[in-house]
Amino acid sequence: MDKQKQIRNISFIGSGNVASHLALAFIKEGLNIAEVYSPTVAHAKQFAQQVDCDVVNGPNSLNPNVDLILVSVPDSIIREAFEGLQKSEGIIAHTSGFSSIEVLSSAKHFGVFYPLQTFTKNKEIDLSDVPFCIEGNNQEIEALLKELAGKLSKDVQYINSEDRRYLHLAAVMVNNFTNHLYHIAGDILKEKGISLDLLLPLIRETANKIKTLGPEQAQTGPAKRNDTSTISEHEKMLSNLPEYRELYHLISMQIRNKYHG
Amino acid sequence: MDKQKQIRNISFIGSGNVASHLALAFIKEGLNIAEVYSPTVAHAKQFAQQVDCDVVNGPNSLNPNVDLILVSVPDSIIREAFEGLQKSEGIIAHTSGFSSIEVLSSAKHFGVFYPLQTFTKNKEIDLSDVPFCIEGNNQEIEALLKELAGKLSKDVQYINSEDRRYLHLAAVMVNNFTNHLYHIAGDILKEKGISLDLLLPLIRETANKIKTLGPEQAQTGPAKRNDTSTISEHEKMLSNLPEYRELYHLISMQIRNKYHG
Repeated sequence: MDKQKQIRNISFIGSGNVASHLALAFIKEGLNIAEVYSPTVAHAKQFAQQVDCDVVNGPNSLNPNVDLILVSVPDSIIREAFEGLQKSEGIIAHTSGFSSIEVLSSAKHFGVFYPLQTFTKNKEIDLSDVPFCIEGNNQEIEALLKELAGKLSKDVQYINSEDRRYLHLAAVMVNNFTNHLYHIAGDILKEKGISLDLLLPLIRETANKIKTLGPEQAQTGPAKRNDTSTISEHEKMLSNLPEYRELYHLISMQIRNKYHG
Repeated sequence: MDKQKQIRNISFIGSGNVASHLALAFIKEGLNIAEVYSPTVAHAKQFAQQVDCDVVNGPNSLNPNVDLILVSVPDSIIREAFEGLQKSEGIIAHTSGFSSIEVLSSAKHFGVFYPLQTFTKNKEIDLSDVPFCIEGNNQEIEALLKELAGKLSKDVQYINSEDRRYLHLAAVMVNNFTNHLYHIAGDILKEKGISLDLLLPLIRETANKIKTLGPEQAQTGPAKRNDTSTISEHEKMLSNLPEYRELYHLISMQIRNKYHG
């Protein structure tokens, strides 16, 4: 690739939440979204309307000479998703936290463009402080992808595939699993006719305080205090929700072991 | 008690995080902290210095005629903590999420003053949107406590003891247990030499997005997608942290059952 080149024309394989949030952010920066292919045709059409680009009906039909083709599909189908584009002069990069850069190694130029954030439909996100984890098959590709990420965020880092995999695992813990706890709290309160909204200030403060304290210092509560009578009362209160009681027990024991083990 | 009366003079039994945050907030509102008793004398002295009040060496030595004595001690010792003050003309109220108002029923005037928030040493908190859950042994006491809470927060509610107990349980889920997940994430990343700071934007967005979406809509990730191969890879990555692997497995199965059960 031409060293003076910048990434200006981008196509997408996949049209889910990550793809559409990124595409909209690129457009805001004056970049051009050329084409999209998605196995889910209805999604592709919606995406194309949002970002004003063309839909093609197979990865082979994508123009192989755009600057970048972003592959934003489930991990299990990344490898097959760019088949036929191996000779593309553009960069092929995926947006996965989990998959190695090596799944793309049959391409001429390839990399990883992973925004460490949760993207949800119809919920706009400020990308400016989202860490972008970048890899490239060589330094030139890495630099081009970093420059592109730098247009969206002030936190752009080289992270190798192994470290990114652990970041992704940790992200599942603090995002998906935390959200499951919110879900449980909502279920517990719903039975009593109480709105989860009452917990929003607490939820916000819980997230805020680890910025200054770190999770070890931030911990409070019955398990931290080794208050076994409150723990066993809580477990009784969950007797009609045995799945949640099991989870309550496991986490309480883990917290207790950390501080009183 | 005199119906025209307002609460102006407050003493504390207990001098932990909840007590000291509340006392400092009361002072800002021009109220007077009279005395403190704490089983932990060193804490009591620190508290007294912070809020400029007197330390007494037993609950019996507290002036029984202040407007309010706030009992902010572990649940298991609330009942004994105010012994000798049963005839106090002031209100005796505890700050616990868990204990019933009835533990104070031997007092003349009693109630509950529970701020639904996590308080940590040396971390100031804006109380203005913190829900204060109030109970009183009659409407007059409830009104006095509500008026007091209203000086600190715009969200003051009557919540009965039974509902408050479930709120407290839900609070343990979204605060203590979520913080444990942050702790786990930090441990996983520490092994790789990666800072937990990289996850802060994700942690913040996870907390923010349930305001608009609710936890059921907000869920994403491998378990939500029923992506069993990523789940089993993650479990392999945790093979040297068996406690965390067990927790990963349990929560992933619960999320999967919610969406694909």
